[in-house]
Amino acid sequence: MRDIQHYLRSRAADFEEDLCRLLRIPSVSADGKYRSDVERAAQWIADQFERLGVAREVIPTAGHPLVYAETPAVPGAPRVLVYGHYDVQPPDPLGEWISPPFEPTRRDGDLFARGATDDKGQLLTHVKSLEAWMRVRGGLPLQVKFLIEGEEEVGSEHLDGFLRANAERLACDVVVISDSSQFSPDLPAITYGLRGIAYFELRVTGPRQDLHSGTFGGSIMNPANALTAILARLIDDRGRIQVPGFYDDVLPLTDQERSQFRALPFDEDRFQGRIGVPKLHGEDGYTTLERRWARPTFDINGLWSGYQGEGSKTVLPARAGAKFSFRLVPNQNPAKVAECLRGFLASVCPPGVTYELIEMHGGAGYVADLSSPYLAAAARAIERGFGTAPVFIREGGSIPIVSSFRKHLKADSLLLGWGLDDDNAHGPNEKLRIADFHRGIAASAHLWNELASR
Amino acid sequence: MRDIQHYLRSRAADFEEDLCRLLRIPSVSADGKYRSDVERAAQWIADQFERLGVAREVIPTAGHPLVYAETPAVPGAPRVLVYGHYDVQPPDPLGEWISPPFEPTRRDGDLFARGATDDKGQLLTHVKSLEAWMRVRGGLPLQVKFLIEGEEEVGSEHLDGFLRANAERLACDVVVISDSSQFSPDLPAITYGLRGIAYFELRVTGPRQDLHSGTFGGSIMNPANALTAILARLIDDRGRIQVPGFYDDVLPLTDQERSQFRALPFDEDRFQGRIGVPKLHGEDGYTTLERRWARPTFDINGLWSGYQGEGSKTVLPARAGAKFSFRLVPNQNPAKVAECLRGFLASVCPPGVTYELIEMHGGAGYVADLSSPYLAAAARAIERGFGTAPVFIREGGSIPIVSSFRKHLKADSLLLGWGLDDDNAHGPNEKLRIADFHRGIAASAHLWNELASR
Repeated sequence: MRDIQHYLRSRAADFEEDLCRLLRIPSVSADGKYRSDVERAAQWIADQFERLGVAREVIPTAGHPLVYAETPAVPGAPRVLVYGHYDVQPPDPLGEWISPPFEPTRRDGDLFARGATDDKGQLLTHVKSLEAWMRVRGGLPLQVKFLIEGEEEVGSEHLDGFLRANAERLACDVVVISDSSQFSPDLPAITYGLRGIAYFELRVTGPRQDLHSGTFGGSIMNPANALTAILARLIDDRGRIQVPGFYDDVLPLTDQERSQFRALPFDEDRFQGRIGVPKLHGEDGYTTLERRWARPTFDINGLWSGYQGEGSKTVLPARAGAKFSFRLVPNQNPAKVAECLRGFLASVCPPGVTYELIEMHGGAGYVADLSSPYLAAAARAIERGFGTAPVFIREGGSIPIVSSFRKHLKADSLLLGWGLDDDNAHGPNEKLRIADFHRGIAASAHLWNELASR
Repeated sequence: MRDIQHYLRSRAADFEEDLCRLLRIPSVSADGKYRSDVERAAQWIADQFERLGVAREVIPTAGHPLVYAETPAVPGAPRVLVYGHYDVQPPDPLGEWISPPFEPTRRDGDLFARGATDDKGQLLTHVKSLEAWMRVRGGLPLQVKFLIEGEEEVGSEHLDGFLRANAERLACDVVVISDSSQFSPDLPAITYGLRGIAYFELRVTGPRQDLHSGTFGGSIMNPANALTAILARLIDDRGRIQVPGFYDDVLPLTDQERSQFRALPFDEDRFQGRIGVPKLHGEDGYTTLERRWARPTFDINGLWSGYQGEGSKTVLPARAGAKFSFRLVPNQNPAKVAECLRGFLASVCPPGVTYELIEMHGGAGYVADLSSPYLAAAARAIERGFGTAPVFIREGGSIPIVSSFRKHLKADSLLLGWGLDDDNAHGPNEKLRIADFHRGIAASAHLWNELASR
């Protein structure tokens, strides 16, 4: 692998420049005003493959396009599908960014920009390792298919249908996804479990229009009062979700997993200090890692009603709304959670208001087979790329597509995270450590080799 | 009074034009960006007095200016203080106005604009009746002092101090305020009771910055979850406020008042239909009028956290906030309510977040002496101006200044409301019936006569 390692070293600066080019495209999938930027990002990715002479295609969907590329089949070697996404979260709140979200900026070994870690930076490692193999060896020791979507941050609405319709074309033995984190700086990890999600918007409506809170207050149900009453009933002060049936299908942690988690070098005080809260808090009876990785949650993601401006306004608002989501664990079904939630809302909504529940998106959790030879091959590749053997962990975020790959392609996923917990994915000042970008490229270059000789 | 009535009829169109001029000035006191408009409105009012040769003054405060004017003393006759306010509520939500809030527009006998009823239209009736007496008779049969402020919608912060410091100059036998409603169209009312208010902003802070709800969800208290938990504990599903000590000083309704209220022509179904709610709701054991007029309330006036934009964002927000207020009834003390609230918040705030409670403004409730000769004089004047004897009612809104007049000037207030319940004070499409504007001017013109010969 010396030839390839040499190529990677010699092109390091170019790789960073290419990443910056991609990060400058504000491909925010949630907001219609960025539509043309999203398309521009898809085209930019496709151009990367074109430059290498790799067959590629920008595939329109009813939403944002997919980018698909594939290298030639290699008889006898496994087929790998690399999945990633070129869309990013909205950059709000803009005022909290130290440098603008779409002007990539280097500070102290980090590259700051929306999408740096989630997922443009991580995704690009596999494109650049492909480049190295193509330029140095003229091809890969196995067939790699790339499937890169633009709707991951809004629920991958059109991907599932695409997988179902193109299962043959996408057929593979294993999926590789880099959209997660190392356990800690310089301690790489393979993530074998993910949480799912069920995301909702709840809109509560009271009077036909905003009213004077003096003249009318006390005689009608205030929709903001009603909304807070409903939301507060969803979870108790011991961190237990109160929706009947919610926990029915939860896969409990095994004793082995719990002791494996306890063995990890995790410092609760440092974790608390880093996020800046006066106290950690979660479901009774579980550790912080268990709460983050393998227990379901209820979190309000957005909340609005009435007057939010300066000063005071004595208004009785006509409407109130919330975005909220449950993180789900393996075996929980988002559709069943939605059904349980509908029943619960009907039982707890106060009189005098109406409500509408909108199912925004959902995805099941995932837990992988720890004895797979592909997992072992990935562990060797990471050890070569990072200089350290990875630990096996779970991750609290959701990659709903992992369940879809299992369902439609019958393939498990290797979740090889090059990011860090403090990369601020989804928050202001998102970043990726530049060294990790390059180690990720090296690990990916080894991965093709290790998987081919598994 | 024929000479004065004749003058009022002949100048009706001019009076309406003057009202439109005042309504075009966006004197929103809550928002700093309207500061110069607020000053322009004060000057416009002062100019009205100047044109009549009445001594007037624009008095700066640490906030928005006061306008003060007074007619000459009349020995042997009572002294009246007319209070009003030239500031208005913010016009949000702008999209719901049929015509722009600061372009007064006539439709079906109503004049639509922010401030039409609250309080520019009502206030101007007393200025225009003064004009009639000055132009026709060259003076009033009693001394009238005008005190018109620009901070009523933000808690009249600087008025109390002004009253205390100028009690001698403002000395009067009775206060006249037109900032309330008739009982129903063509059934004028004298309001003998008001609710007070205690208005707060609560800011809850969790992590240092917004976090990914997957990576971190479940391990820390979400400040939006905490906020809804706190707010939901403030009131139960029977409409009872849960803050210990809150009801201690509440003055209960007398049996006489309750039967008087029941005798009023109030149609619950029509009221419900007009405001467009599926069901009326309030404190157990009270009628709708009792709930609106003489029982305390808890209403959320504003609510915000996290992502409020299009689509979904899986964010664990760093902050959440709410504006909320209690309407108070006579005998309740806003400062004591704030103290009880502080104790309650300390006991119910969940672990893992911090909070800040800001006391925005407060004012006590009020109930007048029903046997006062000034009340009888006002009833006669209204009967002459409107052609119907008024009923005696309470009002759910707050005019905190009424308590200040009692405290500093030892004077009760005559609350003579020319507006209507559906005038949309504080909401979009605020209006004033044009006929009521003119009847209010006529009643005011009679009032000077009736009070002088009480």
